[in-house]
Amino acid sequence: MNFRSDNESPAASEILAALQEANSGHAYAYGEDGITSGMRKRFRETFETDLEVLPVATGTAANSLSIAQLAPAYGAVFCHQEAHLHADECGGPEFYSGGAKVIPLSGELARICPRILRSAVAKMEEMGVHESQPSAVSISQATELGTVYRPDEIREIAGVARGRGMGLHMDGARLANAVQRLGCTPAELTWKAGVDILSFGATKNGAMAAEAVVVFNKDKATGLARRHKRAGHLFSKMRFMSVQLEAYLRDDLWLQLAERANRAADALSAGLGGLAGVEVLYPVEANEVFVRMPPPLADGLKEAGYEFHLWPGSRDHYRLVTCFATGVDEVNAFLALARQLSDGSEGK
Amino acid sequence: MNFRSDNESPAASEILAALQEANSGHAYAYGEDGITSGMRKRFRETFETDLEVLPVATGTAANSLSIAQLAPAYGAVFCHQEAHLHADECGGPEFYSGGAKVIPLSGELARICPRILRSAVAKMEEMGVHESQPSAVSISQATELGTVYRPDEIREIAGVARGRGMGLHMDGARLANAVQRLGCTPAELTWKAGVDILSFGATKNGAMAAEAVVVFNKDKATGLARRHKRAGHLFSKMRFMSVQLEAYLRDDLWLQLAERANRAADALSAGLGGLAGVEVLYPVEANEVFVRMPPPLADGLKEAGYEFHLWPGSRDHYRLVTCFATGVDEVNAFLALARQLSDGSEGK
Amino acid sequence: MNFRSDNESPAASEILAALQEANSGHAYAYGEDGITSGMRKRFRETFETDLEVLPVATGTAANSLSIAQLAPAYGAVFCHQEAHLHADECGGPEFYSGGAKVIPLSGELARICPRILRSAVAKMEEMGVHESQPSAVSISQATELGTVYRPDEIREIAGVARGRGMGLHMDGARLANAVQRLGCTPAELTWKAGVDILSFGATKNGAMAAEAVVVFNKDKATGLARRHKRAGHLFSKMRFMSVQLEAYLRDDLWLQLAERANRAADALSAGLGGLAGVEVLYPVEANEVFVRMPPPLADGLKEAGYEFHLWPGSRDHYRLVTCFATGVDEVNAFLALARQLSDGSEGK
Amino acid sequence: MNFRSDNESPAASEILAALQEANSGHAYAYGEDGITSGMRKRFRETFETDLEVLPVATGTAANSLSIAQLAPAYGAVFCHQEAHLHADECGGPEFYSGGAKVIPLSGELARICPRILRSAVAKMEEMGVHESQPSAVSISQATELGTVYRPDEIREIAGVARGRGMGLHMDGARLANAVQRLGCTPAELTWKAGVDILSFGATKNGAMAAEAVVVFNKDKATGLARRHKRAGHLFSKMRFMSVQLEAYLRDDLWLQLAERANRAADALSAGLGGLAGVEVLYPVEANEVFVRMPPPLADGLKEAGYEFHLWPGSRDHYRLVTCFATGVDEVNAFLALARQLSDGSEGK
Repeated sequence: MNFRSDNESPAASEILAALQEANSGHAYAYGEDGITSGMRKRFRETFETDLEVLPVATGTAANSLSIAQLAPAYGAVFCHQEAHLHADECGGPEFYSGGAKVIPLSGELARICPRILRSAVAKMEEMGVHESQPSAVSISQATELGTVYRPDEIREIAGVARGRGMGLHMDGARLANAVQRLGCTPAELTWKAGVDILSFGATKNGAMAAEAVVVFNKDKATGLARRHKRAGHLFSKMRFMSVQLEAYLRDDLWLQLAERANRAADALSAGLGGLAGVEVLYPVEANEVFVRMPPPLADGLKEAGYEFHLWPGSRDHYRLVTCFATGVDEVNAFLALARQLSDGSEGK
Repeated sequence: MNFRSDNESPAASEILAALQEANSGHAYAYGEDGITSGMRKRFRETFETDLEVLPVATGTAANSLSIAQLAPAYGAVFCHQEAHLHADECGGPEFYSGGAKVIPLSGELARICPRILRSAVAKMEEMGVHESQPSAVSISQATELGTVYRPDEIREIAGVARGRGMGLHMDGARLANAVQRLGCTPAELTWKAGVDILSFGATKNGAMAAEAVVVFNKDKATGLARRHKRAGHLFSKMRFMSVQLEAYLRDDLWLQLAERANRAADALSAGLGGLAGVEVLYPVEANEVFVRMPPPLADGLKEAGYEFHLWPGSRDHYRLVTCFATGVDEVNAFLALARQLSDGSEGK
Repeated sequence: MNFRSDNESPAASEILAALQEANSGHAYAYGEDGITSGMRKRFRETFETDLEVLPVATGTAANSLSIAQLAPAYGAVFCHQEAHLHADECGGPEFYSGGAKVIPLSGELARICPRILRSAVAKMEEMGVHESQPSAVSISQATELGTVYRPDEIREIAGVARGRGMGLHMDGARLANAVQRLGCTPAELTWKAGVDILSFGATKNGAMAAEAVVVFNKDKATGLARRHKRAGHLFSKMRFMSVQLEAYLRDDLWLQLAERANRAADALSAGLGGLAGVEVLYPVEANEVFVRMPPPLADGLKEAGYEFHLWPGSRDHYRLVTCFATGVDEVNAFLALARQLSDGSEGK
Repeated sequence: MNFRSDNESPAASEILAALQEANSGHAYAYGEDGITSGMRKRFRETFETDLEVLPVATGTAANSLSIAQLAPAYGAVFCHQEAHLHADECGGPEFYSGGAKVIPLSGELARICPRILRSAVAKMEEMGVHESQPSAVSISQATELGTVYRPDEIREIAGVARGRGMGLHMDGARLANAVQRLGCTPAELTWKAGVDILSFGATKNGAMAAEAVVVFNKDKATGLARRHKRAGHLFSKMRFMSVQLEAYLRDDLWLQLAERANRAADALSAGLGGLAGVEVLYPVEANEVFVRMPPPLADGLKEAGYEFHLWPGSRDHYRLVTCFATGVDEVNAFLALARQLSDGSEGK
């Protein structure tokens, strides 16, 4: 069983069925087709507002395009030091923006702390033209440690951003998990809380390869379509991208899929947390469980075929990620083995 | 019936079936999966050589990445003025390369003329540091006018490039049509003729969204994987991209699909060329037919539901594009109507 | 005697004297000094309007910064194919803008033709997101062939630009020569005719190394100071740059220097034009004289120590450039020799 | 008296005299002149090796160009978090490199610690293509806190860099002060210790506006001349830039000027360090003195007309910078006043 990453999950059967259906005859290219306009409508309904949405194939593309909309080449973007766009995208935001600076901030549970943010921005502003212009803040929802921001926390960060003329971006690679967990509407977690641009993720939660840049603040959409095209993300057969997103949002499929992942994470967390010598490190608010675990226990589980990552830079912190396809039986079997291995080592 | 563009064609059923098959359980992300290594092997077999291959979702991405491998930011790329990478990609190559100059050349039938190329390169070199450094030549196979380069023509251009220290790129968005038409091996049309990097197209000829950067000259592969990642083209669920390419090459599917498209173009060309007042403008060497046609005839066909483009900047030049899904019956029905409309107008 | 380029002229004694004077004790860095504010005031007086002015050390920097202000990375800039920013700056505008496309236009006497411009812009706009966004037009005053635009000609081009939402840039590397020749005010030739941003040149006409970006349309100044800094053109000891510009404008020194250069060009043109077999190719409207001359005559002059360039791509077109330091006696001596060599060859 | 920055110092009289001399008649443009070749020769003599040298007008340009030579767009540069190129250049290195990441490191006395460097590089390498490629290390000599690296310390850092395929850059904005202080040869402090590219500073120490990129490792010089040109740093009247550098190096003027600055800093440090309540914070190894000082004392000195900076982010840390033009009498007068103000407050 693979607990390495939701990136390694299959596609949901509903998504594949929709792809199959979309494949009938010719359709206008580059998004002029009916499926794409239906998808756009679906996004507007889901988020209860007017918006612009452009499909892309990866989260790196969504994040990098979003940042390029908010930060000029001479701008700076503030994010948490664990943020994917700083630590895992090989300089994508720097590339798309033409060399904006990404400023990593510390903060508990992989969340930006408004006080630290405020002070970093102020320090940069003091430097005038000798430093980049504070232009954007980016938050991850859920975060890289599987925690989430509540609407009022987002609002506070949005307030700092707004007050200094900066835009607010949300990396929503796991937005579905956060929405499902918090029981908020998608609107409450995004534009109503001050988010200007959202990287909307679907791939980790059931799509084959489909993410989207969603612009709530239309003032920030200037040039987006051309950036999207020149970066090679304007698909000729757009309908096949759009239909994945359409099916994902239809009948709340995305939230149902996320619920399965979240429930599996809860079960993992509860089960592992009850073992001697195992500590659940952070609140499980999405579909990721971080535990401190004796390496022999981890090794035993791995030998039995379970896959999960040792957290980079650590000796006994492990990350387990669930997904919509994680079965209840699989979690139970995993926990049973963990208990057995744990009891065995206890007894020695 | 849609003769507007092969970009508007459906996906081949073999490709969709392969996608379905690939969707079983978890698979390692970012290309570490077995389907992707199979796809790489398939490319090496098809081109009869060692090579690097990276899937991307669009031709713009393939072209722009390829150019960035061959031309530094201070470099220049020579191509035909009709070339997609100059005229239809919103500055993608300029973006990816960090501002290299794309130099459009004239030349008959949308093909680069070695003499014109040589002279343009020489003129630039004379300027020394006051001009960009001639770094790459890019040819389209088939060209934007549906013509092709023979292996010896490619070799001659490669010779000019090699002689000035430049690399040779081939935009193979319609490579299948050219290979099928010329009866050469893929190797003969590419690396054996001097091509360093190929944009390998599959989307126009049956894939859903799958192209690839293929590097024959490994000296030119430095940094490609990171450029690919930071541009947002490293798919997490890579298997779904790879399997399209794998199925496309398996059992020569790509050439069979291209043959259908080419045959349909031949039939269209023969039929239209026989009509009074209609002139086939260029040799039909792939799946595109360019004709001069009386606008009333074109209008009549369009009124009957046939779709095709007036060529930009012209009054009576039309382009008709066929694809693997263009039926023989459809072509016959179209031609019958054309004859009827043409006779009617003749008689007047 | 050097007729190769005004780039090879010395600095005017007035400029050097001003530098000497500016060198007294400490002064605030980065433009916070009194000399710089005086320079800014002088520019506002000279151009009779409010404006922003930033000194740079080269014309390439002035042009590239200006273009980056007017064209986003996904934009396009239209200029004459002879324009320095297209043909002689090694992709500077592409670099500064992050990959905007520079579109070279044909046009007589190195001047943009409004009709050709209009049609090129329209063609690009038809392509939508598949092409860059028409963003700026750049004209050279005086042009690369030593001709000038009249105010109404500039206004017409500005009208085309304005009508399509584009900005107008003027490369004024030889603005002084044009102003002096036309007898207009600097205002009439620039912002009153619709110029948004000006590359103001001083180096070719007496400064040591001093040019400036002058922004008339403050809406186009966003981010300029930071672009200027990050490109390495914000001088710490700014006063030494500013004082060159201040002295250049003071008491109309710039126009007096330009007058000397223009008069010398007139004398050259009149003298050479009177010789058998020599043809002055273009109206002499600044300080450049282009002639068709028998190569043996040119060789004879060169053997006697006179230096001037054969025009790239030509066999018998020569360019002679004068400057403020070109002496009347030198021109006369040159012409006397030319006459003598010409008569000699006639007699044979 | 200005102790704010050596950026605010005048030009040395020897430099201005050289400029005056260089201004005789025409000279070939863009560095084809005799003064420039003399300057190149002088650099080779001074550093006792073959090298490439390109003048630029600012330290930002020198640093940014250097980094672009060492780091591709997908690369990463490691430097101290206080380094000018990270904290004071508005993203210049990011701009020139096309979006390389600058990674700030902690380290005592503004110096890179080899252990911290090694660990940061290793962490990045583990990420593979998900992170930028470790490409360069940059050290400042002297550092932003007025400390210096000894040759063996540089060698150790160079060893880390070399071992991971990275280049080593030195920001030598105050190289003269370091060379003078350490009594090493320029060669020992640079290429002999493993430096590939040097930003050679002259402006802070007597030039008007003259720095240079010096490439010791010719393998790293590819494309430099064109980058220099397209960034707008290739001066047409190059001789005026070159002559400043030539005069600066001639007869060890640069070291004599640095000695005056260093001696003045020593005197300041000794004098201030003897006062009650004043603490010299770091070893004074160049021409900068950092002290903790009671704010009332600082205020008293400022009221008397002395200028110096409160260190950003601090309440009672002050920086005093000396230069070649700082007079012994001025330092003595300043110290006398400080003593007097200090005694007065003591007595209360």
